[in-house]
Amino acid sequence: MKAEIITIGDEILIGQIIDTNSAFLASELNKIGIAVHQISSIEDKRSHILTALKEASQRAEIVLITGGLGPTRDDVTKSSLCAYFEDELTENKEVLQHIEQLFEKYIETPISDLNRRQALVPSQAEVLFNKYGTAPGMLLRKDGVMYISLPGVPFEMKELVKNEVLPRLQQEFKRPVILHKTVITYGLGESAIAEKISDWEDQLPENIKCAYLPNFGKVRIRLTAIGDNEEHLQNSIASLFTDLHQLIGDIIVGYEDDEPVEIQIGRLLSSAKQTIATAESCTGGRIANLLATPPGASVYYKGSVVSYATAIKEEILKIPSELIEKHSVVSAEVAEAMARNVRLILKTDFAIATTGNAGPAKGDSDAEIGTVFIGIATPEGVYSKKFIFGNHREKVIGKAVHKSMELILSEILKFANA
Amino acid sequence: MKAEIITIGDEILIGQIIDTNSAFLASELNKIGIAVHQISSIEDKRSHILTALKEASQRAEIVLITGGLGPTRDDVTKSSLCAYFEDELTENKEVLQHIEQLFEKYIETPISDLNRRQALVPSQAEVLFNKYGTAPGMLLRKDGVMYISLPGVPFEMKELVKNEVLPRLQQEFKRPVILHKTVITYGLGESAIAEKISDWEDQLPENIKCAYLPNFGKVRIRLTAIGDNEEHLQNSIASLFTDLHQLIGDIIVGYEDDEPVEIQIGRLLSSAKQTIATAESCTGGRIANLLATPPGASVYYKGSVVSYATAIKEEILKIPSELIEKHSVVSAEVAEAMARNVRLILKTDFAIATTGNAGPAKGDSDAEIGTVFIGIATPEGVYSKKFIFGNHREKVIGKAVHKSMELILSEILKFANA
Repeated sequence: MKAEIITIGDEILIGQIIDTNSAFLASELNKIGIAVHQISSIEDKRSHILTALKEASQRAEIVLITGGLGPTRDDVTKSSLCAYFEDELTENKEVLQHIEQLFEKYIETPISDLNRRQALVPSQAEVLFNKYGTAPGMLLRKDGVMYISLPGVPFEMKELVKNEVLPRLQQEFKRPVILHKTVITYGLGESAIAEKISDWEDQLPENIKCAYLPNFGKVRIRLTAIGDNEEHLQNSIASLFTDLHQLIGDIIVGYEDDEPVEIQIGRLLSSAKQTIATAESCTGGRIANLLATPPGASVYYKGSVVSYATAIKEEILKIPSELIEKHSVVSAEVAEAMARNVRLILKTDFAIATTGNAGPAKGDSDAEIGTVFIGIATPEGVYSKKFIFGNHREKVIGKAVHKSMELILSEILKFANA
Repeated sequence: MKAEIITIGDEILIGQIIDTNSAFLASELNKIGIAVHQISSIEDKRSHILTALKEASQRAEIVLITGGLGPTRDDVTKSSLCAYFEDELTENKEVLQHIEQLFEKYIETPISDLNRRQALVPSQAEVLFNKYGTAPGMLLRKDGVMYISLPGVPFEMKELVKNEVLPRLQQEFKRPVILHKTVITYGLGESAIAEKISDWEDQLPENIKCAYLPNFGKVRIRLTAIGDNEEHLQNSIASLFTDLHQLIGDIIVGYEDDEPVEIQIGRLLSSAKQTIATAESCTGGRIANLLATPPGASVYYKGSVVSYATAIKEEILKIPSELIEKHSVVSAEVAEAMARNVRLILKTDFAIATTGNAGPAKGDSDAEIGTVFIGIATPEGVYSKKFIFGNHREKVIGKAVHKSMELILSEILKFANA
């Protein structure tokens, strides 16, 4: 059971936007046992769309298409679908009614013929109702292959996938179970790990694949298992992970269960009715942004002080200027004081603080570029750790954010398990 | 002159990561006049790599490949390249020396055979030196097509592209000029705009394409011009934009010259020696993060107070509790007080404040979900604007961030032009 994804839009091919739709689609399909064989991004051009549809249909049973469904002339997906399915556009009354309602409620300009054309769909298409926009999803079939065309606007596409696409795929196709489980390691390079676990890797069963993903100093080791029985696969992976733990337990810092760290943190804090704040220097608000992302974040996330300038550390975070002068602004003492004070000022249970030099130039301190101190405050105390994250700005900030989230998660887990 | 991009990695096809490399590559290629015909993401699997290389080579003169160059067994790009080019791996002395130096300087574990294998390259390959990592870039040729294989780690890939790949492409290929110019509009839907400018669109010359990109309430209208003479193309677009201005000048809010708004803001503030701060509620630090992203941001970006909880607004931003009680925390008065106070407390020239309700649940106020007040403080005063951004959390936050950046940019521009 294989799927292909085709994303249509010149804006992708000129690099004006990053195609995030594919990753979402691929992840959702995998969760229900459908593997994605290829993702292709192509032009808003009929000949290219026709070729891509044909190629994909020769390799997969399901072809998901996003983009090119807007009302303007550069959008040609619908007419290309008509050409491909030898079909013609007909007006769908329900969609038209929905478009009229959307205009009445949200849009000040009167509805036009172009808007009404959004209600035209190929006559063979089953309409997938898009409650957030004017372009409906469409399901079509040809020679045993299912084609699903979705709008390219990410939040419209996502809602359609959850409410309309996945239920249909689950109902129609017999699917295997695909499980991805990832161990996160820190402290060894991928080649050093590969040598240590070479025998273990040799003995992996046929249906389980192993992959290494190095990023920001961590190496993720991912096992992908395919089979019919979920419980059996879960057990196989658990037993392989136990063996892995005996080989490299010292560098395993966590597991990734499809749940991003900010969601884990949010879930744990919400259920424990605990709260968190951050005081950020070199990470510039990126940790704040991560913590604030999950819906319902306002329950546990109180706020942050982004103190890019040293003066703000003194002014708002009440770090004594003598402390900064004595130890430098990039120091364990300042990181700890930031974490301690932001926790007290914002009255939270936990706090994260960062101070460092991400480069490219040295800032208010003499610290080597790449030096970051992370301060962690909990109901039981405060500590800090020093890291040297290399000399590339993007990498330094990324690593500092990852490491901060990981440190605070382990503290929150301690309290949750206490 | 066409290129194709192939990104290799199971992690892309299972949605574990978003492929950002393609957008970077596509954008850089476009800047030097090379159009990207298709982007394909494929598995770490020899047969799939061979097929993809063959297909791409039939459509393009340049094939750029990223990923699959790590030292572990799941990485098969190098051996697949050998199969494709009927070549074999040979050790490159310079690369080996570089790997040994990297290990000596940054990595505590001793260098291993797997690490040394990173210095093996196909014998026909021209090595592109990767100063940030162990996997070298490789340039190969076959039947008039140039193939360039690059590591998948984004910052390594980017440095290689800038320093090694682009100069070679510029030297070797005669390229047309490709210009993309984008007008940003706000206030009308794409179909309403399309109707207003229909005649203008009809008269576009053959070599100029028009596209509409709706996102977060704005519609971008992009013109793509291809030709031999840059000055001529610039003039054609300028004249088309003048005509466009006469038709829809009232909704044009800016132009996008490949320069993200945070870079524009940073450039303007740096050169005027002015500074900025933010006080964010519903945007949760995302504006802070944007402002802090450009290298050198510490010169103009002083810091932020992310006041997710109402108490922080009172405590740190010194918003009187009576003001909040009287007008509600989501109000013009509070947005203005936040902007005014954060500007004063952080001693900056400009400040942005946001307060609103992004959903999914109502927070500390009764404001309808989607309501956002943006407060703007400048050396000349403070004002706020109210927006209703719909009922989808991601969309509300995204729109609030975009709109905030746009409002502050227009203020900064006023001072820059004064």
